[in-house]
Amino acid sequence: MAHIYIYSPSGAVRDKAAFKRGVSRLKQLGHEVELDADALSRSTRFAGDDATRLAAIHRAAASGADLALISRGGYGLTRILPAIGYKAVAKAIAQGTQFMGLSDFTAFQNAVLAKTGAITWSGPALGEDFGAEQPDDIMEACFDDVLSGQGEGTGWQFSKATAGVYADKRQGVWAKDAVLWGGNLSVLVSLLGTPYFPQVKGGILFLEDVAEHPYRIERMLTQLLHAGVLAQQKAVVLGQFTNFKLTPHDAGFKLQSVVDGLRKQIKAPVLTDLPFGHVATKICLPLGQTLSLVVENRDALLLWGHTHA
Amino acid sequence: MAHIYIYSPSGAVRDKAAFKRGVSRLKQLGHEVELDADALSRSTRFAGDDATRLAAIHRAAASGADLALISRGGYGLTRILPAIGYKAVAKAIAQGTQFMGLSDFTAFQNAVLAKTGAITWSGPALGEDFGAEQPDDIMEACFDDVLSGQGEGTGWQFSKATAGVYADKRQGVWAKDAVLWGGNLSVLVSLLGTPYFPQVKGGILFLEDVAEHPYRIERMLTQLLHAGVLAQQKAVVLGQFTNFKLTPHDAGFKLQSVVDGLRKQIKAPVLTDLPFGHVATKICLPLGQTLSLVVENRDALLLWGHTHA
Repeated sequence: MAHIYIYSPSGAVRDKAAFKRGVSRLKQLGHEVELDADALSRSTRFAGDDATRLAAIHRAAASGADLALISRGGYGLTRILPAIGYKAVAKAIAQGTQFMGLSDFTAFQNAVLAKTGAITWSGPALGEDFGAEQPDDIMEACFDDVLSGQGEGTGWQFSKATAGVYADKRQGVWAKDAVLWGGNLSVLVSLLGTPYFPQVKGGILFLEDVAEHPYRIERMLTQLLHAGVLAQQKAVVLGQFTNFKLTPHDAGFKLQSVVDGLRKQIKAPVLTDLPFGHVATKICLPLGQTLSLVVENRDALLLWGHTHA
Repeated sequence: MAHIYIYSPSGAVRDKAAFKRGVSRLKQLGHEVELDADALSRSTRFAGDDATRLAAIHRAAASGADLALISRGGYGLTRILPAIGYKAVAKAIAQGTQFMGLSDFTAFQNAVLAKTGAITWSGPALGEDFGAEQPDDIMEACFDDVLSGQGEGTGWQFSKATAGVYADKRQGVWAKDAVLWGGNLSVLVSLLGTPYFPQVKGGILFLEDVAEHPYRIERMLTQLLHAGVLAQQKAVVLGQFTNFKLTPHDAGFKLQSVVDGLRKQIKAPVLTDLPFGHVATKICLPLGQTLSLVVENRDALLLWGHTHA
């Protein structure tokens, strides 16, 4: 049983029924759930004004909970990045409060990494994941691994197409002592050029996005390329890019065109099919963790178990 | 009468009827129109593959025309920025070939400024502007000023609301020896952190965008803010932000909220209502030009006539 603190650092909770179902589900799983006083606050599209959301983040850091979990993403974190008490957040993490979320939360996670090097979790949010009519089994199992502290790694299977691209590459350890980072592509790229963008060399960059046309995904990847970020990574791992719409004008230009183009631009492997993004089945990823990427056949493993050995 | 070279550095021409009408209109205005061999080429969504579009840019630079005008925007320039022959472009500009366009062309213009300091024109495109059923009078008059070389400035009238915000500010010269730069916000921000983003201090930054929700406009402005770009400008000038859709979830958050927020974040004046963007009525703006901003009542003037005096 864990103590879970629910707070809202980004958009206002839209689906209150899902929020309630999420809280019930966490309790049903045996957890103690604490709700931040402003978890359901609203100021226009935000979960309270900037000061309110900042205070909620700082209360989450001071909560002594095992896990601070966002109610949902949306938009709102980039606005308040300069005013976050990064030392307090890093101290809370060092003392055992883990932070978890995704999407807009990418801004918080990468800012925390840039400012303190502390590790946060890319994983589910309360409403969309635990508040789903039928929460995803894999998501819940990975979430449980994080809370139990038993997880020493995670993994997934990539497509035959991707395996074919790297058929000549010797299997085994593809990256060692690499910092895992990234998250939502749009949000990550919105930090480029600012003090909140982590300077990670020799890392493993994972990316996902929702409702972004492939040409926009490519434009963002091109920015990371021209900024010199991609050439410094040992691997790029693509998660789920969902909910975009191709048009007749695309005339064959599609997500795979972007992946193919990316592979021509960088030497590091570009893996695919990571179960992470705006989808039900998602694994939990320790953003900022130094780990290894091991590939065997079509299985990719991210291993951090021996880091502290 | 001017020699106008039409080429396609970005998206494939979708509306060929508008393209033809545009060519006819320019001829009707007395100009000699030369079409690039690949002006109507297509490779998926692009006006030819990267090599084709690069060659078109370089042919435009070598054309000896008075003006190289894009057929349309779209997407495609950021991909090819590293391979553009900037010296050849700057030489063409020095020898009298002016480059004009907007939208995706923002990437080219700012890269040329960053790499060479040469001046390009933010202005109409062939299809959407000259190919309109009824080309806009003001657009055509401003275009004519550029071709005749008679223009020593341009101007517009901003709203009473904006005038009210700066009612206490002494009228007259608000910025002197300031470099005008900017363009499409999304495209400009997609250059941040790369070698193609101009390092302009004490400049006047003008911005427009299309089909971007105000929260995304704000996120991009926040990126420019956190990157230290906005604090270095003498003025920010907002053009037309069009074709976005608010939702009930916005609950009062709108474009004006973004403008109000921006004014709280920077000391420089934020003017509005610049007739530039994805609209019919647009003026021509010399991107990279050192000029002055003069404000009298609700009139804003950008004056560069005495720069070469």
